[in-house]
Amino acid sequence: MTRKTWAFEDLTVGRSIDLGHKDVTAEEIVEFAAEYDPQPMHLDEEAGRASILGGLSASGWHTCSMYMRLLCDAFLLDSTSQGAPGIDQIKWKRPVLAGDRLGGSITVLAARESKSRPAIGIVSFRSELFNQRGDAVLELDNSIMFLKREAQA
Amino acid sequence: MTRKTWAFEDLTVGRSIDLGHKDVTAEEIVEFAAEYDPQPMHLDEEAGRASILGGLSASGWHTCSMYMRLLCDAFLLDSTSQGAPGIDQIKWKRPVLAGDRLGGSITVLAARESKSRPAIGIVSFRSELFNQRGDAVLELDNSIMFLKREAQA
Repeated sequence: MTRKTWAFEDLTVGRSIDLGHKDVTAEEIVEFAAEYDPQPMHLDEEAGRASILGGLSASGWHTCSMYMRLLCDAFLLDSTSQGAPGIDQIKWKRPVLAGDRLGGSITVLAARESKSRPAIGIVSFRSELFNQRGDAVLELDNSIMFLKREAQA
Repeated sequence: MTRKTWAFEDLTVGRSIDLGHKDVTAEEIVEFAAEYDPQPMHLDEEAGRASILGGLSASGWHTCSMYMRLLCDAFLLDSTSQGAPGIDQIKWKRPVLAGDRLGGSITVLAARESKSRPAIGIVSFRSELFNQRGDAVLELDNSIMFLKREAQA
C-alpha cells in the first residue's frame, strides 16, 4: 500500500480541512437529474424559477455527490479511510443553482479508537458547503473509519 | 398544474409503497465513481475484491441516487411533493455490487400538517432497499413536504 498522508492520528478534534471549490454548471445539473432525480426543477430553468427553489437547481443528491468529490480530492483519497457506515444527518439549507461556486470545509467533531478492531479509529465529522455569496447550502454529519498510522502495511 | 395522484392526504401512517427494481451494472458504478467518488473500490473490480467491500461496489452516494430514481418513478413525480429539507439518517448496511438487483419500499412513519403553511403537510418516511438475496443494503429516513389535495391549482 502506498503510504497515505492522513491516518487516524492526524484527525484530531477541532481539525478543519478546506474542501476547495466546485463550479456548478447547468449541464451537470440536468445530466445528473435526468439519470437520478428527474423532477422538473432539476431539469428545466423555467420550471426551477416557478418552484420554491427559484431557478434551475441541483438535486440534493447531486449536491451530496459534488461534496463527496471535493472530499475525495481534499484528503480522503490520500487517507487510510476504510469507509463509512452511513450518514448521521444532511441539511440542504439553500438551493444550489446553476452558476454557483461551492466551497467549504470538514471539521473533526470527535475521534475514538474502535473497541472491536484495534487497528481502526472512528472519526466523526461535520461538513459545510457555502455558495459564492457565503450562504450555507449543505450541512452533513457522518463518521468515517481510518486505519491507524502503524497499521498501514 | 396537472392533477397529481399522490397528495398529503394519501400518505397515511403505515402506508407502504413498492419502489420497483433497479439492476446495477459495473459500467454505471464506474461512471458514477469516476465523476463523484473516485475511490479504488468503486472504480476497479480487483481493488474492490481487495477491500472490505468484496467486489466492485457502488459509492454510497450512487446507491442513494439510484434510490432517488426509484422513488421518483414509484410515486414522487406523480405527487404534490414540495421538496425535502434534508435527510435524518442513512445506513449503508451492505455493499451494493455490480450485478445486484435492488428493490424495496418506502413507508410512512408520521404525517402532520404544517403550522406555518396551511396548504402543506409534512410526511416522515423510512425507506429500505434490499438486494436479490434479500439482504438489506440501504436504510434511509427523511421527511418530505406535500401539498394538500385541495391546494393543487
